[in-house]
Amino acid sequence: MALKLYGAPMSTCTARVLVSLHEKDLDFELIPVDLFAGEHKQPPFVSKNPFGLIPVLEDGDLTLFESRAIASYVAEKFKETGTDLIRHQDLKEAALVRVWIEVESQQYNPAISPIVYQHFVAPMQGKSPDQTIIDANVEKLGRVLDIYEAKLSKSKYLAGDFYSLADLSHLPYTYYLMKTPCASLINERPRVKAWWEDISSRPAFKKVAGSMTFGGK
Amino acid sequence: MALKLYGAPMSTCTARVLVSLHEKDLDFELIPVDLFAGEHKQPPFVSKNPFGLIPVLEDGDLTLFESRAIASYVAEKFKETGTDLIRHQDLKEAALVRVWIEVESQQYNPAISPIVYQHFVAPMQGKSPDQTIIDANVEKLGRVLDIYEAKLSKSKYLAGDFYSLADLSHLPYTYYLMKTPCASLINERPRVKAWWEDISSRPAFKKVAGSMTFGGK
Repeated sequence: MALKLYGAPMSTCTARVLVSLHEKDLDFELIPVDLFAGEHKQPPFVSKNPFGLIPVLEDGDLTLFESRAIASYVAEKFKETGTDLIRHQDLKEAALVRVWIEVESQQYNPAISPIVYQHFVAPMQGKSPDQTIIDANVEKLGRVLDIYEAKLSKSKYLAGDFYSLADLSHLPYTYYLMKTPCASLINERPRVKAWWEDISSRPAFKKVAGSMTFGGK
Repeated sequence: MALKLYGAPMSTCTARVLVSLHEKDLDFELIPVDLFAGEHKQPPFVSKNPFGLIPVLEDGDLTLFESRAIASYVAEKFKETGTDLIRHQDLKEAALVRVWIEVESQQYNPAISPIVYQHFVAPMQGKSPDQTIIDANVEKLGRVLDIYEAKLSKSKYLAGDFYSLADLSHLPYTYYLMKTPCASLINERPRVKAWWEDISSRPAFKKVAGSMTFGGK
């Protein structure tokens, strides 16, 4: 039975899972969830994810939510197919992948997501972007990226000299950031810029990026 | 070579790793990091974790940070020892453990941590707890716990009828919450309350809880 992914291609969390599926060259069915109609907050969707959030993956009778958990499952179940995203044959490398997945989740995402929200979501809700929120998070993200710049002088990718789920997990939000004036945060740091150009030019991401548009941007 | 854990027993993130080490009956050395002296923001600590955050685990020449990544590593490397925290013999159960680890990280932690911060950290900094922040997050945490109450009517623990890293990951912050008036959030939900009493009475957590004190509370 084919994998079924419920989500919306414009959503960063859906995109994270889509890229992992493409890195594995998997067949899957994308079932659109209409966020504007609030479909994710109503049955039957909430019977799949009680938190009412996309994406959800169905693999036979198994139903999974939380994008990082789904991407980990895809990487683990199909570890012998396509790109090895979790370095499953080396416990130490696998541990470092997990560390940098958590850095994305706990350090990078909390700083980048409010910036993207203010630039893309607020205007769709008829609000002006809140520059105070943007400024505070630009400073926070800058500090995180200084550490990335130093790390990427020691290894080509975040967890080592190999592309992994840790790098992949950064793609969706950074893609939106690069459409804003805050792209300078990436472009001003040469090693971060080279890393971004490398990971965003992978075919698996290019298949997803084309559908990532937000309010015409 | 023994595992070395750099951290502070009062810290929720250090406690998460300590409990996982005790569930595995492992020998390890706890090396205290003096947070009040700012030791975590200075060399040599920042050479171990460039983000300047505790805990850090050293296992021979491998250095790991981010508590959820470290706990996952402990659970994976020592999967045949002590409690099986990740259901490593069943891909579906393992995937559900990962889902609920992410729920803790993305839904539970962002709501509970500001409540605990306001009750314990703000007073140590000479500030009054900000009731507006507490109220907003009590509402948010209540919505998360309503979903937990429903889930725990279907299975004994979050990921299924087995204790796992997903449950364990909730222990440190919830322990501090239970020392505040907001403990009612747990106590008013019978299945959540029973789950809390179960997981907090495990010997591995009792070994850690005794050292979890914050400014005398």
